[in-house]
Amino acid sequence: MNISIILAHPDNQSFNHAIAKAAITRIQKNGHRFNYHDLYAEKFDSLLPSHEIPANALLPREIKTHCDEIGSADGIVIIHPNWWGQPPAILKGWVDRVMRPGVAYKFLEGDQGEGIPIGLLKAKAAIIFNTANTPSIRENEVFGDPLQRIWKNCVFDLCGIPAFHREMFSVIVTSTYEMRLSWLRKVGNVISQYFPAERGSSCSR
Amino acid sequence: MNISIILAHPDNQSFNHAIAKAAITRIQKNGHRFNYHDLYAEKFDSLLPSHEIPANALLPREIKTHCDEIGSADGIVIIHPNWWGQPPAILKGWVDRVMRPGVAYKFLEGDQGEGIPIGLLKAKAAIIFNTANTPSIRENEVFGDPLQRIWKNCVFDLCGIPAFHREMFSVIVTSTYEMRLSWLRKVGNVISQYFPAERGSSCSR
Repeated sequence: MNISIILAHPDNQSFNHAIAKAAITRIQKNGHRFNYHDLYAEKFDSLLPSHEIPANALLPREIKTHCDEIGSADGIVIIHPNWWGQPPAILKGWVDRVMRPGVAYKFLEGDQGEGIPIGLLKAKAAIIFNTANTPSIRENEVFGDPLQRIWKNCVFDLCGIPAFHREMFSVIVTSTYEMRLSWLRKVGNVISQYFPAERGSSCSR
Repeated sequence: MNISIILAHPDNQSFNHAIAKAAITRIQKNGHRFNYHDLYAEKFDSLLPSHEIPANALLPREIKTHCDEIGSADGIVIIHPNWWGQPPAILKGWVDRVMRPGVAYKFLEGDQGEGIPIGLLKAKAAIIFNTANTPSIRENEVFGDPLQRIWKNCVFDLCGIPAFHREMFSVIVTSTYEMRLSWLRKVGNVISQYFPAERGSSCSR
């Protein structure tokens, strides 16, 4: 399998980076290939300009590469902190620019964009790992956990990905070393659940 | 009153720009002062860097100005299209960088950030105008309308603003001239409902 991993956190010492590392380690151990993007490290330009909105727009090489990768991925892993019930702006911009018509979805002929799009992504599963400083009961009861709707309903269901899994690790600021270790083990387990070791990979030797 | 108006749309011929113009016209007619930011036009840098996360961080002048304005506003008006159940990245970045601790909310002493923050904004009302190409029944039933939770629960309730109003104008791509005119009248009416004409303003002469 070929897995796309997208990380959005400004601090390279963050627990989000540790999650990405744990995910990559397990993906490699399970014998899969992967593309990894640390959006802050690569200074991803998150602003969708007007001229990129049409489905037939000419794309900068950087965006084209992202589109080709996500369009051909067998699995997608996204890692980000919960900032205001949403991803950081840099990741929102990745969605705005990369999850394009013709790449992630299309409209039926004659539809100007008001109808129900058809998902085009071929990935079998999308996994979201989030960190938060809001306890999960408050996230659900006070905020309504918008990240669940955003990623599952608005993005991946629409783009045709059949399996979705999201883990929210909280509370980060008061977590112990042991809690973090157990969360990283959870990351590995979720990866193996959706992208298991292939026959003949290092994991099954 | 002093109203902050924030617009996020890349195309200056967009209906979002027409909404902003209608809002400003009514705000002026009602005798209020305002600050207006077309985030795309001013090339707002939407990436929250690591060193700006601490509450006592030194801020670039541009961000400091935005913080001062939003912290002293009596009313807030935000205009943006619905992109993936979320604002465009440039506006998400405005929230990430401007709605800061010490400006929009604070934690009680001894709280590392895991507790319930106290809202600091003094605005009496926040109004959101959205455009969409998704019919409202599909937005609610399939997507769960994340923008309502994002703006009301996650942002403005948390920051202490007592009144919230949101209008979603859809479907834009198939709308007629008459529909758009009626939507712009609605914009004016909503503005006057929350920020009515002051005694002695041009409106009451």
